[in-house]
Amino acid sequence: MSAPTLADVVTVLEDLYPPRTAEGWDAVGLVAGDPTRPVHKVLLAVDPVAAVVDEAIEWGADLLVTHHPLYLKPVTSVAATTFKGAVVHRLLLAGCALHVAHTNADAAPRGVADALADLVGLVDREPLVARTDDAERGIGRTGTLERPVTLREFAEHVAAVLPSTAQGVRVAGDLDALVSTAAVVGGSGDSLFDAVRAARADVYLTADLRHHPASELRERAAFESAGATATDTGTPYLVDVAHFASEWPWLAYAAADLAARFEEGTVTTRVSTRVTDPWSARLASSGR
Amino acid sequence: MSAPTLADVVTVLEDLYPPRTAEGWDAVGLVAGDPTRPVHKVLLAVDPVAAVVDEAIEWGADLLVTHHPLYLKPVTSVAATTFKGAVVHRLLLAGCALHVAHTNADAAPRGVADALADLVGLVDREPLVARTDDAERGIGRTGTLERPVTLREFAEHVAAVLPSTAQGVRVAGDLDALVSTAAVVGGSGDSLFDAVRAARADVYLTADLRHHPASELRERAAFESAGATATDTGTPYLVDVAHFASEWPWLAYAAADLAARFEEGTVTTRVSTRVTDPWSARLASSGR
Amino acid sequence: MSAPTLADVVTVLEDLYPPRTAEGWDAVGLVAGDPTRPVHKVLLAVDPVAAVVDEAIEWGADLLVTHHPLYLKPVTSVAATTFKGAVVHRLLLAGCALHVAHTNADAAPRGVADALADLVGLVDREPLVARTDDAERGIGRTGTLERPVTLREFAEHVAAVLPSTAQGVRVAGDLDALVSTAAVVGGSGDSLFDAVRAARADVYLTADLRHHPASELRERAAFESAGATATDTGTPYLVDVAHFASEWPWLAYAAADLAARFEEGTVTTRVSTRVTDPWSARLASSGR
Amino acid sequence: MSAPTLADVVTVLEDLYPPRTAEGWDAVGLVAGDPTRPVHKVLLAVDPVAAVVDEAIEWGADLLVTHHPLYLKPVTSVAATTFKGAVVHRLLLAGCALHVAHTNADAAPRGVADALADLVGLVDREPLVARTDDAERGIGRTGTLERPVTLREFAEHVAAVLPSTAQGVRVAGDLDALVSTAAVVGGSGDSLFDAVRAARADVYLTADLRHHPASELRERAAFESAGATATDTGTPYLVDVAHFASEWPWLAYAAADLAARFEEGTVTTRVSTRVTDPWSARLASSGR
Amino acid sequence: MSAPTLADVVTVLEDLYPPRTAEGWDAVGLVAGDPTRPVHKVLLAVDPVAAVVDEAIEWGADLLVTHHPLYLKPVTSVAATTFKGAVVHRLLLAGCALHVAHTNADAAPRGVADALADLVGLVDREPLVARTDDAERGIGRTGTLERPVTLREFAEHVAAVLPSTAQGVRVAGDLDALVSTAAVVGGSGDSLFDAVRAARADVYLTADLRHHPASELRERAAFESAGATATDTGTPYLVDVAHFASEWPWLAYAAADLAARFEEGTVTTRVSTRVTDPWSARLASSGR
Amino acid sequence: MSAPTLADVVTVLEDLYPPRTAEGWDAVGLVAGDPTRPVHKVLLAVDPVAAVVDEAIEWGADLLVTHHPLYLKPVTSVAATTFKGAVVHRLLLAGCALHVAHTNADAAPRGVADALADLVGLVDREPLVARTDDAERGIGRTGTLERPVTLREFAEHVAAVLPSTAQGVRVAGDLDALVSTAAVVGGSGDSLFDAVRAARADVYLTADLRHHPASELRERAAFESAGATATDTGTPYLVDVAHFASEWPWLAYAAADLAARFEEGTVTTRVSTRVTDPWSARLASSGR
Repeated sequence: MSAPTLADVVTVLEDLYPPRTAEGWDAVGLVAGDPTRPVHKVLLAVDPVAAVVDEAIEWGADLLVTHHPLYLKPVTSVAATTFKGAVVHRLLLAGCALHVAHTNADAAPRGVADALADLVGLVDREPLVARTDDAERGIGRTGTLERPVTLREFAEHVAAVLPSTAQGVRVAGDLDALVSTAAVVGGSGDSLFDAVRAARADVYLTADLRHHPASELRERAAFESAGATATDTGTPYLVDVAHFASEWPWLAYAAADLAARFEEGTVTTRVSTRVTDPWSARLASSGR
Repeated sequence: MSAPTLADVVTVLEDLYPPRTAEGWDAVGLVAGDPTRPVHKVLLAVDPVAAVVDEAIEWGADLLVTHHPLYLKPVTSVAATTFKGAVVHRLLLAGCALHVAHTNADAAPRGVADALADLVGLVDREPLVARTDDAERGIGRTGTLERPVTLREFAEHVAAVLPSTAQGVRVAGDLDALVSTAAVVGGSGDSLFDAVRAARADVYLTADLRHHPASELRERAAFESAGATATDTGTPYLVDVAHFASEWPWLAYAAADLAARFEEGTVTTRVSTRVTDPWSARLASSGR
Repeated sequence: MSAPTLADVVTVLEDLYPPRTAEGWDAVGLVAGDPTRPVHKVLLAVDPVAAVVDEAIEWGADLLVTHHPLYLKPVTSVAATTFKGAVVHRLLLAGCALHVAHTNADAAPRGVADALADLVGLVDREPLVARTDDAERGIGRTGTLERPVTLREFAEHVAAVLPSTAQGVRVAGDLDALVSTAAVVGGSGDSLFDAVRAARADVYLTADLRHHPASELRERAAFESAGATATDTGTPYLVDVAHFASEWPWLAYAAADLAARFEEGTVTTRVSTRVTDPWSARLASSGR
Repeated sequence: MSAPTLADVVTVLEDLYPPRTAEGWDAVGLVAGDPTRPVHKVLLAVDPVAAVVDEAIEWGADLLVTHHPLYLKPVTSVAATTFKGAVVHRLLLAGCALHVAHTNADAAPRGVADALADLVGLVDREPLVARTDDAERGIGRTGTLERPVTLREFAEHVAAVLPSTAQGVRVAGDLDALVSTAAVVGGSGDSLFDAVRAARADVYLTADLRHHPASELRERAAFESAGATATDTGTPYLVDVAHFASEWPWLAYAAADLAARFEEGTVTTRVSTRVTDPWSARLASSGR
Repeated sequence: MSAPTLADVVTVLEDLYPPRTAEGWDAVGLVAGDPTRPVHKVLLAVDPVAAVVDEAIEWGADLLVTHHPLYLKPVTSVAATTFKGAVVHRLLLAGCALHVAHTNADAAPRGVADALADLVGLVDREPLVARTDDAERGIGRTGTLERPVTLREFAEHVAAVLPSTAQGVRVAGDLDALVSTAAVVGGSGDSLFDAVRAARADVYLTADLRHHPASELRERAAFESAGATATDTGTPYLVDVAHFASEWPWLAYAAADLAARFEEGTVTTRVSTRVTDPWSARLASSGR
Repeated sequence: MSAPTLADVVTVLEDLYPPRTAEGWDAVGLVAGDPTRPVHKVLLAVDPVAAVVDEAIEWGADLLVTHHPLYLKPVTSVAATTFKGAVVHRLLLAGCALHVAHTNADAAPRGVADALADLVGLVDREPLVARTDDAERGIGRTGTLERPVTLREFAEHVAAVLPSTAQGVRVAGDLDALVSTAAVVGGSGDSLFDAVRAARADVYLTADLRHHPASELRERAAFESAGATATDTGTPYLVDVAHFASEWPWLAYAAADLAARFEEGTVTTRVSTRVTDPWSARLASSGR
């Protein structure tokens, strides 16, 4: 019952989340580590940040799998003169490799989008933007809720099942309107608005929405539902959570699916519980 | 005591907020309207959206001045088949012109950044990124607080003086740390992080911050303050408000400065009080 | 027998001249107007210029259809501070919409090229550059004349059947040579010379030909017909008319085809007779 | 009294028309010929076409100087399989070199623009677009007419003094209006409209004007002179001649200026009288 | 038994080496010459340089066929003020045309790569990078040696069969290792390393290899054969010859194949024996 | 007498070879290593290849300084699945940092070019292409030899003083001609031919010259020295050595200059003597 090598573990990760299914601009795969070294313990986290590196080293992890790339923009130096170089040095000297599964994990069955869709309770589900070469994989998921609920109930459910963050849950739309279909995208979702509209989802759950795209989507929804007045605000409604919160649920799936591929007792997986959302507090407006 | 023409009013607006001081990618100035028509009533608002058009028409405005462009991306059609074309048609048929003062208003003395800096109480103030041709104008403002306060006190003050929105105020950093210098940028501010760091501001107040830039800024701050551990979280801290809330304070300045240029009783200005932040509600996380 | 809405009329125009058949750089379709308004009277013209707007308003048109786009280069303002913005304002305030059918009308059956080919008497006709998705549509037309004529006779016929302009008809080639095949392109045609040569047309009727392309085409024709001497001048010969004159004949077809789609008496169509060729006079050379 | 070498003659031509004063996209200078060969006879012409090559060879020219480049688009072959390659072969085998003075000749004192301005009678003259490094050189010329004349008289004078072509002279504007200032550009001039407007010229003489720029210029002139009606047609008026006709007058200047640089009897210059305008005939419109 | 025209000979050359099979960046075909002239004598050479032009003129060639283009970068002048223009002038005045067969000759059966592969003794041969439209043509050749030999024997054979140059033959790899498969590319071959690796060739024969690509290839070979130590140096090994030497062998094939297409006695072909490798001497290192 | 930190050593290296003096495309500076670690031993080498890493580790180096970048093309992974990633892992785990001084070292006083110029004996020396901001720094060096020598003597001297490589020294030009001025560029020098010609150097010493640029330079030299015949071959002559050999001499300067900046006994420097030229053997041509 010997431990697999890092190369063995990477083979499994690339089978679960094939690199060819990542977006063209993405940078996924093994970032650091020697493929011949044995792997006993694997920590999974959203972000390759200092607090997560602390946790990996304290636990004695041989491999850290993160959702976000350490280097999305390529570099010619990994010197420990920057926080990213320091991550490389600390991990290497502690004998811990680093592997990234990003948009390939977004797209996969039991990936980031699927994990989020499961929490929401989305049935008759399909990718929001399916890959042309594989209808089961793609960006986001869209489908039907188990039963129609008010937008308020939908948002309260989201607030209850996702990890707690300071930001909480933002909602745009009529809280008393009924919603029966939804689209979900883990991480920043404002570039997917056209797909959400094409899917005729009543509500869109995602993260990192900014003023201009959100405002234009809502104006367009109102215009198309009732002409040029603003009395009926139209669908899709928006539910926005912390970027971290939308992606974290996947880690448990990845931990389980990875461990299941190895003989029991050889590889231990663990999901980091450090909240790496950068926001530490939120205050209510008390102004006019 | 006759009313000025639209051309006269535009001349004043372009003196307050010269078009040449807008960013190269921006689209400012008169969007619709006949320069020979008289102007009696001017409504000022952040966004050229349906609710604001309703207000302008109900009040009988001759001119609507907004901060955000109706058309940032240029078009070859203004047909009323889109919500933007409908804005043009409704305004034109109601005899109301539309003028945009955007990044030129951000940059100006008594502009968007100055109005925000006044609310925060920033002294010894200068542009965060000054124009090369005019040291008094530029993006954002940086300076010293009237007295050092904790980050918590700073954020509570922001929450009290800006218009109320569902989102509230997000904070990243140690709430009990003292801050004595600040930088402020109205609207989306995550492209200005390098300038904020160069200005050595203890805290940065802006809007629309997303996970990746905020996370990287905070990791970098922590790394540079204490090496590769995360115990001291370093400056700059971040305070993020609704995009709308960060820009609305300027409207009162613009209304006053515009009216002051005309003989009393000829031009009436008014600030829209419709909150055009797209978010209608916020729920606290109730999960793990 | 109620009038159709503008949306109904646009549906018919887009059926006659589908927007997807326009060139990629073109800007066709509805430029201004409210799709819910009724349309009783439609004026058709080559250019959306002031004289045509006068005519539309005097006649009480609800819709102006022009061949040339008002905005080919997109804009972020339609303020009445430019002649184009003034066209938008005058039309909107008079309740008249504006629709453009440009390269999609060039390409269509009974479109600009077909109307010109009919006047010339071209039989066994096909597009000069057929669309890959529809062999019946495309740029220009090429075919056989009903009987061989001299180049002089061909040009005299053109001068007699096209609307009169100050410029008249320019001819390059041997006036006494016989021509039996022709190519025609409405509007500026010098980018189509390769297609004209590939089609082996004896004569090419188009507009707006400039010195360099015309000179190079004629030199090439001479070289290929007889080596490097200039005694035999070779085909294709060129016949150049006013841009306006080459496109105006289509208006009658469009007027008829549009009216025929609505119950008699509901929609009245009319072809503008204002000559919008910019040239007001032509003087013969009297020099050496 | 020996003949200069080709290198000597090129030195003089490049002093009269320095290559550095050509536009960046242009291709000027010696195109073919051996710099060590003697030059006795120089023929000057507008276009390097077959008829001009015939003339050069018949006369026994050692050098042909043309205004238009043989190769503006660069090539990797001069084989005599194209009309351009045939020009190279015929000239080389006849011992005749080829030199091009194009936009550098446009810009020069006593260049193309000056020769045209002299014919028109332009005084207090300066470049329409002066070079930043030499205020005496630049594109076109603008100035004052010796006395105000009607647009008709101006055009009749142009028709009388330029070489005769089939096209004649086209005029846009009110023939009875008085003009006292003018701008002139040899060759295609529609890219210079902004400069013509900035120079406040009453009339613009150039060549190769196409429908869209000419129509837009005239609409803009009308709009700015009288608002959005078309009763007063405004300045600048347009006078359009054959491209060839606008550039030919310079040849006499070049022939004289070149000959004057050599001892009498060593170099004979001659201006080609072949009309290389491609149009062989013009018919008046006889239609409606 | 009359001589063919240049056009006839070009037709044969383009049948042997079709221009469409040249790389997109290449410039092949007839560079100078009159297609109607008779061709009796054809000289073939690697480079269109002065020494080769001397040989062509001394011998009275009507056509010079070279492998390398005279003009790869296009020009707007062939004046005899540069060495390239002088080549055009000298050839034209001597009645000798110039034709280029470059990457189309590399790719062809019995082309540059095949001639080199024949000298090496490569069997079961196929293009190293086959054309998608013709599996028999393509860049380089790869295959099996008639029998395994040591790298030293392979290199000694190359040194013996290629034309002698000052540079000689450079070898990278273990001289005593056995090689049984090879790849060959005439001319500069360092852009083909990925294809050589994909073909699993033991040794790669080409020219003009530079330090960085060669060093990286050898490091990669060593790493992949034995991990990160340098004891086993791995395949592919490299054998580098003078660019000229790698391409010259093809000339004999071209001379024979061209002559065979014409009736005996009409066209005489000859291979230039001037060595146009620029290096005139090579000294051994005598330093440390 | 404590050892400096890596940060201290980098400060010295960046003072000797300022990063701002590197070419824009280059990637210089610290590639790996923790700036807080002490540095006792520094190894200097041309290439960051496996054999050099072996040497650094065997000797116990704390820092490896190389001339060539490990990563010129940026990466998002340093996993030990490639030979470059293996270099990073081996160095880091052995506690050895990596620093690159490339085009900044080429340009510096006592840099790569100066070291080569010293060996050649170049006096009255200046940069071949001086920086606009510092006339003492720049690419290559040009100057006068101590006394005129034949090209053969020059090349023999080069062969004697540079490190021995399999390739030896290639020479283009007349071995018996006298040379009195020279230009030198370490590494690949064929992009500098225009500067060499402008400097009027009789001979150019560099590396990695390929057929086409070398052939064109030599043809141009011959043409300009004697017209279109090849009897006098003209200057500049070329002397080409192994890329490695041209850059290695600098290492001794760097080792000395670096050590001199620290208190004696604190930092030991050493120059690698592994020849990292990829060529292991050279055979003379034995063919025709």
